[in-house]
Amino acid sequence: MKFKMPVYQGPDFLSASLRNCPDAVTEPVVKAGVAPKNYHATTIFPEYYKIKDQWFLLQQSRMDGVVVLHDDGRMEVKEFRRLTAGEQVFTGRTEDGSEGILIHATGFHQAEGDAETFAFRTGRSRETSYSRDYDRLYELLRYEKEHGHIVWVLGPAVVFDWDSKKAMISLIENGYVDAILAGNALATHDLEGALFQTALGQDIYTQESLANGHYHHLDVLNQAREYESLAEFVAAKKIQDSVVAACVRTGIPMVLAGSIRDDGPLPEVVADVYAAQNAMRQYSKQATTVICLATQLHSIATGNMTPAYQVVDGVVRPVFIYSVDVSEFAVNKLKDRGSLEVTSIVTNIQDFLVHIQRKLV
Amino acid sequence: MKFKMPVYQGPDFLSASLRNCPDAVTEPVVKAGVAPKNYHATTIFPEYYKIKDQWFLLQQSRMDGVVVLHDDGRMEVKEFRRLTAGEQVFTGRTEDGSEGILIHATGFHQAEGDAETFAFRTGRSRETSYSRDYDRLYELLRYEKEHGHIVWVLGPAVVFDWDSKKAMISLIENGYVDAILAGNALATHDLEGALFQTALGQDIYTQESLANGHYHHLDVLNQAREYESLAEFVAAKKIQDSVVAACVRTGIPMVLAGSIRDDGPLPEVVADVYAAQNAMRQYSKQATTVICLATQLHSIATGNMTPAYQVVDGVVRPVFIYSVDVSEFAVNKLKDRGSLEVTSIVTNIQDFLVHIQRKLV
Amino acid sequence: MKFKMPVYQGPDFLSASLRNCPDAVTEPVVKAGVAPKNYHATTIFPEYYKIKDQWFLLQQSRMDGVVVLHDDGRMEVKEFRRLTAGEQVFTGRTEDGSEGILIHATGFHQAEGDAETFAFRTGRSRETSYSRDYDRLYELLRYEKEHGHIVWVLGPAVVFDWDSKKAMISLIENGYVDAILAGNALATHDLEGALFQTALGQDIYTQESLANGHYHHLDVLNQAREYESLAEFVAAKKIQDSVVAACVRTGIPMVLAGSIRDDGPLPEVVADVYAAQNAMRQYSKQATTVICLATQLHSIATGNMTPAYQVVDGVVRPVFIYSVDVSEFAVNKLKDRGSLEVTSIVTNIQDFLVHIQRKLV
Amino acid sequence: MKFKMPVYQGPDFLSASLRNCPDAVTEPVVKAGVAPKNYHATTIFPEYYKIKDQWFLLQQSRMDGVVVLHDDGRMEVKEFRRLTAGEQVFTGRTEDGSEGILIHATGFHQAEGDAETFAFRTGRSRETSYSRDYDRLYELLRYEKEHGHIVWVLGPAVVFDWDSKKAMISLIENGYVDAILAGNALATHDLEGALFQTALGQDIYTQESLANGHYHHLDVLNQAREYESLAEFVAAKKIQDSVVAACVRTGIPMVLAGSIRDDGPLPEVVADVYAAQNAMRQYSKQATTVICLATQLHSIATGNMTPAYQVVDGVVRPVFIYSVDVSEFAVNKLKDRGSLEVTSIVTNIQDFLVHIQRKLV
Repeated sequence: MKFKMPVYQGPDFLSASLRNCPDAVTEPVVKAGVAPKNYHATTIFPEYYKIKDQWFLLQQSRMDGVVVLHDDGRMEVKEFRRLTAGEQVFTGRTEDGSEGILIHATGFHQAEGDAETFAFRTGRSRETSYSRDYDRLYELLRYEKEHGHIVWVLGPAVVFDWDSKKAMISLIENGYVDAILAGNALATHDLEGALFQTALGQDIYTQESLANGHYHHLDVLNQAREYESLAEFVAAKKIQDSVVAACVRTGIPMVLAGSIRDDGPLPEVVADVYAAQNAMRQYSKQATTVICLATQLHSIATGNMTPAYQVVDGVVRPVFIYSVDVSEFAVNKLKDRGSLEVTSIVTNIQDFLVHIQRKLV
Repeated sequence: MKFKMPVYQGPDFLSASLRNCPDAVTEPVVKAGVAPKNYHATTIFPEYYKIKDQWFLLQQSRMDGVVVLHDDGRMEVKEFRRLTAGEQVFTGRTEDGSEGILIHATGFHQAEGDAETFAFRTGRSRETSYSRDYDRLYELLRYEKEHGHIVWVLGPAVVFDWDSKKAMISLIENGYVDAILAGNALATHDLEGALFQTALGQDIYTQESLANGHYHHLDVLNQAREYESLAEFVAAKKIQDSVVAACVRTGIPMVLAGSIRDDGPLPEVVADVYAAQNAMRQYSKQATTVICLATQLHSIATGNMTPAYQVVDGVVRPVFIYSVDVSEFAVNKLKDRGSLEVTSIVTNIQDFLVHIQRKLV
Repeated sequence: MKFKMPVYQGPDFLSASLRNCPDAVTEPVVKAGVAPKNYHATTIFPEYYKIKDQWFLLQQSRMDGVVVLHDDGRMEVKEFRRLTAGEQVFTGRTEDGSEGILIHATGFHQAEGDAETFAFRTGRSRETSYSRDYDRLYELLRYEKEHGHIVWVLGPAVVFDWDSKKAMISLIENGYVDAILAGNALATHDLEGALFQTALGQDIYTQESLANGHYHHLDVLNQAREYESLAEFVAAKKIQDSVVAACVRTGIPMVLAGSIRDDGPLPEVVADVYAAQNAMRQYSKQATTVICLATQLHSIATGNMTPAYQVVDGVVRPVFIYSVDVSEFAVNKLKDRGSLEVTSIVTNIQDFLVHIQRKLV
Repeated sequence: MKFKMPVYQGPDFLSASLRNCPDAVTEPVVKAGVAPKNYHATTIFPEYYKIKDQWFLLQQSRMDGVVVLHDDGRMEVKEFRRLTAGEQVFTGRTEDGSEGILIHATGFHQAEGDAETFAFRTGRSRETSYSRDYDRLYELLRYEKEHGHIVWVLGPAVVFDWDSKKAMISLIENGYVDAILAGNALATHDLEGALFQTALGQDIYTQESLANGHYHHLDVLNQAREYESLAEFVAAKKIQDSVVAACVRTGIPMVLAGSIRDDGPLPEVVADVYAAQNAMRQYSKQATTVICLATQLHSIATGNMTPAYQVVDGVVRPVFIYSVDVSEFAVNKLKDRGSLEVTSIVTNIQDFLVHIQRKLV
């Protein structure tokens, strides 16, 4: 079967309730990083703002941002911390157009009578049937490889296992990855695997713990810190079997955010978490599909900055998010956003990755 | 790679510490179902009993049983409740031979210097590398198909998903299953899937909940209860896509133990739990490999009655137990027995089954 | 604060939609244990049946039973397996009265505008605020001690810990327990604690594992099996610090259902699971509050046979169910029934019990 | 009972194996942030370095640091990233003194024959008996209030619940808290609770979700960002019922580390994660007891930088670490370090805090 894109149905601006809405109102930022008191906060859904009697759709949105109206008429969704004094921020906390702001949460639901199907997908757990989710994901990824932008959000577990690491590398090499968002740990364990075939000193295939193996990850960090970039390190050490190396080889961008758990860090790791957010959002705001594997921290961070829709060539389409983790609690954290397009799968991401690879590559 | 059977190294009965052990002592059962006060309780490990100055290995053992010495010299491991008055039960609570009872827990470890490898397999979790475990399991199952006796212990989740159900059916039909131990729920949901393509009213592929779908499992039970056996029901309804039907077709035995959660029950479900234990042990005591999927109750029950070794054609070999569940707590319950041969895998059993099928069938 | 009983609002039988409903229809049972094809299955909610032009409320209901109309006009909710040939069973699968059967799921919701409050109690997890649930439970238990029937459903973990075991005993002795539903394991570990201060050989206070401690639970079982009843065993061994002994002392009934995991079993354990269901239902059908602690098997079994309402002195009142477990997955299993009155709390039941005891005793 | 401090037994430097050890060797840092190739990495255990024929104990250590020998003879444990060119770093990867470095992991175990007790504390789970752990913790905290330095590591769940929040505030006000390590989320939800009585828009007592309540946390952040410090914000808004406000009132230091999940952030949140590590370590290196509640990220970060011992008034004593979480996987992450003094408790931290408060305050 081929992937079929859900059709978006925009609001009926000619309807009685929307026809006579006033223009949305803005107020200026007085202190940098602080929004005017009655700011409107964005959702993940398509939002329309009425400006000079015309409705405009927000693009490259995110959750819990504010909307700046630039002098040239362009709207930009910004985090509070990025506001500068004097910027005009939209205000108003109604969502029905009555203050010129319309949140249109049901654009994809109306299409094709699918609504009921999705209504029942509540409470996904280890006992949910995932066969169709896998089948749909295969179709989706084949489509996105050609037409979309696939962002992967990776926890360290991805590279703790030989087969799943190989699967990930293979997906990168075969065009199924457009950007990777991860942390220092993922990259460190990945490079340790390439140099020592261990992760935290334990063989990633045989599970044997090597003598003095706990030095491996420190050695990797210490060696890498001799270089200015991961690319230089990979080149100098001729590293092959590695997610990092695969990204270097293929030119796929990788954002490595720092965390307080880090040793090292590796070169290129972003120490400032808000700078890391900025870097991550560069990719999340282009994303059409996001796949989050075994990392609550990075998954939620990415979820916060990823809208439920994307405008591609002028057409509104959904952004598909997959959240995979062995813990119901973890996957449901993302799911709680209530978006149609979050599919959570409760399983070990090793098996998930191997399945994906075997079907696609 | 081909499966390589671990070699068993028996005790050195000529060693200084074992040479002069006395015969083991028995005492009679006075009241049926009650052992003599100082009874010896069996472990999962090979145990030797000295009788008339000669050591004999216990066969078809289990954990926490007692050993009856029959008049004909045969030893039998029995559950307390099965003791009859007058039977002679071995007594003594030392394990080093000093009372004529020797527990030999290290027979497989000594072989081939493997010890260290296994020592590090502690604390298996979602982050353990499972690639080699899968590879070894593929080899093992190919071997056991020809030479062993593979017992599967199934929780209902096996049939909640389309692909995993198909995988299980396929394994049955291709010789990888010698017996199935499960409960009323597994069989009920399985048959519901065959008749309605749902489990508890939810489509096992599309996840759609059907109108009045909650009647499905009651209808299956009510219809099946018209018949004396599952085979008759399967025949009458021409049921195909079903684990139960696959067992009927291939003649693979299935023990369905009742539980207090049951509706129905289906015909053939064993209402008396101790009768169910007896029925289960008929198969567990022949088992050379046991695979437990997503059921704590049946897994622990089976684990209790499965020894760590089996004597096949006079040769002592390990019994391999796999315990697969998405919860570390669940798999570790079995693992706690401390046996070399329990491999726990933390994942969704849907993915596990699909992997096994794709490699083996 | 004092407990305030939610007021039940019955259906408006004079409304247009209900006024002209026909009488409900019955069909006879042909084969014992098998319902007529179009049987009506009960829900946990108040159900009304129209007989001779008059509506009658079902009493002592349960989920997934069928309703027998006896010759004397009495209605009885029965499990399928208890049907006898010739009995008249209600048929029809609509719930709106159009076939004379009315399911009234909203009787408590309408009262006092509470609806919204409860609407938001979805997705309870480790991060839910439980302060008010505790406060309400304290009030409820004080009320129920005088006016209700409190059934406790206990997993073995209750007696693995010194403080929680003492708390449970104290609640029994102080009138907060009307019946206990549990399994062989709970009673065995409890009695082991009393005789050896261990559970499965580990000290329940110091956590020390004693030498040969794994014999303790087998010794308890073996000793108890000398007696015909737990009361005799408790008397003979002068057992004090024990949940079982507290029940014996106070005359609180205890149903111990057997399971395939059991060693032993103890005297009084019900080997036949359907006989055990019958015994459990004797108490669940009187229950006004049910508290389920750390046992998925017994909790779901009890949940299946406990309705959402109870008729006390002619007044319809809710049955309150509490489900406490450290696992979201476990507590949500019960929660899924969608009843207003299930309160799930994600925590270790040791802490739960100690809280309850400190506030109430 | 009163708390009894375990006695530390240092190494016997006059023993045959230690008497003739050479001095430990250092090598210079060539590039800042990169250790010499053969660097020695620290453990959590007491480590002794032989310098000019004399053994010195490392103070204020941490795991996976390197040891710099300053010109004045002082040893300092540093993270790799803090190394400056020219510093002398100890090298050598043996731990037995043969290269002048001795790791003494058993100093507390040898004392008083306690070893066996602790040996059995493996595999702590929801079913472990925690009564004695609580009792010991009460004694310990009373002792530490007078003599020690208690560092709390808090996840957001602490302030999601009314009772647990009050408990935490009460512990701060009564001297049981010397420092708090947490993140932006903890403080934000805490302040939201104080201003709106909600957390993420849900009432922290009644669980009701308020209309437009999702604006609350953004409003808190936006308002707070008007001020330069939390103290100013707390003063301006007259905030009382709050962990942050309690810290301000009592002068207890609080380190708030930023993360990529943050909205805001609040003033004082440390954006650079390595600066945050430095700030955290200021307190962790003074800690004698550390209590980690419901945060894997901050707990592991703190665990990494907290040694198993502390030198107080010239005496070596253990550092006690408590790790409390509802998930076995989470608590075991810390436990894996294998230190005697990590006590993990599997429960909801709400109940844990309320217990502690009721006993101590």
